[in-house]
Amino acid sequence: MLPQPSATRLARLTVILTQYCSDSRRKVSSKTLSKLSGYSATTIRKDISHLGNPGNNGAGYDASQLLTFIRKHLNLTEPVKAGIAGIGRLGSSLINYPGFSGQGIEIIAGFDSSINKIEQSKSTIPLFPSHEIENETSRQKLELGIIAVPKEEAQKTADRMIAGGIRGILNFSPATLEVPEKVTVRNLYVAEELIALATQIRCNKIRQNK
Amino acid sequence: MLPQPSATRLARLTVILTQYCSDSRRKVSSKTLSKLSGYSATTIRKDISHLGNPGNNGAGYDASQLLTFIRKHLNLTEPVKAGIAGIGRLGSSLINYPGFSGQGIEIIAGFDSSINKIEQSKSTIPLFPSHEIENETSRQKLELGIIAVPKEEAQKTADRMIAGGIRGILNFSPATLEVPEKVTVRNLYVAEELIALATQIRCNKIRQNK
Repeated sequence: MLPQPSATRLARLTVILTQYCSDSRRKVSSKTLSKLSGYSATTIRKDISHLGNPGNNGAGYDASQLLTFIRKHLNLTEPVKAGIAGIGRLGSSLINYPGFSGQGIEIIAGFDSSINKIEQSKSTIPLFPSHEIENETSRQKLELGIIAVPKEEAQKTADRMIAGGIRGILNFSPATLEVPEKVTVRNLYVAEELIALATQIRCNKIRQNK
Repeated sequence: MLPQPSATRLARLTVILTQYCSDSRRKVSSKTLSKLSGYSATTIRKDISHLGNPGNNGAGYDASQLLTFIRKHLNLTEPVKAGIAGIGRLGSSLINYPGFSGQGIEIIAGFDSSINKIEQSKSTIPLFPSHEIENETSRQKLELGIIAVPKEEAQKTADRMIAGGIRGILNFSPATLEVPEKVTVRNLYVAEELIALATQIRCNKIRQNK
């Protein structure tokens, strides 16, 4: 069994390796990966060895071979189909996010409760009204849901996604979602990140002044 | 010394308590806070007791008193002044993010390398060209920097913020930033969150099918 923290770090490595390979570089050492990821070279080598031996001739890994190796073991060879609810500024920025390119993430459907917004949007993907979330999720076999709706709509949106078969939610709204055990939620609480960061800086300042 | 994980959890509690108090509710138990935050009630009581005794008469904490108590101990009574670099879709959504309201976060300056974008923006805050980052950061005493620029511009943007005196950066770009030790970076890598989530779901599915 691959420990969850290893899986998260390895997932991060696939994102880094995709960028690295697109610069048409061939070899990559665990030291370089450490510099790019912030994890120690030892941790990286250990995480990779959980999966087996990808081949390393001492001069480093073959970058694209390593990427394929990790993707295969993390079940990431098939692209991940995602739907996004909320096509305001944040949602639109995610639909057009260049960082997804080549990463195996496909946002293939957008949802919004405002028909007006749907009609006026210049979205590059098909958009549907929110009451279609359950239907479309199941019809298009969406695996991941991204929630970028206002706080008040977040729980209802999650319920609809889950009813349609989604098992993973990335939540940008400040709401705390209640979901069944089989569903995994990752929260990106921007306000909390900023407050936590401010706390850290201000405490460090006090420490340094002492 | 308050451990860093406690500080992060307590910072999160201030965000939750602010919302809770705005619904004009008076009393809050550690059980309710546990439901709202996802941390255990024991962890919450322990984190709070690190700071001292906020008063709890058995029927729970006085919510607004607890909020003031935590904010005071985390040095969060003064608002946090932040600047944002990159006023594309993502940056604009953050400038107008309703979740910051009442949280003591003030985004007071925006920066972009495109003068065109600055001129056409309907931003509610003053905007400056990117080469002004260092000057304005130091003049306006910005504490936090938010990076929402393309990957290629991220490092240069961080360097300018740091030269202007910023000690905390929230990075939305997929770049790995190199910063001096005194600077704290928190990364919100959206692609990585989605890939990590996909890995988790697909592994769980395999486990459940076995």
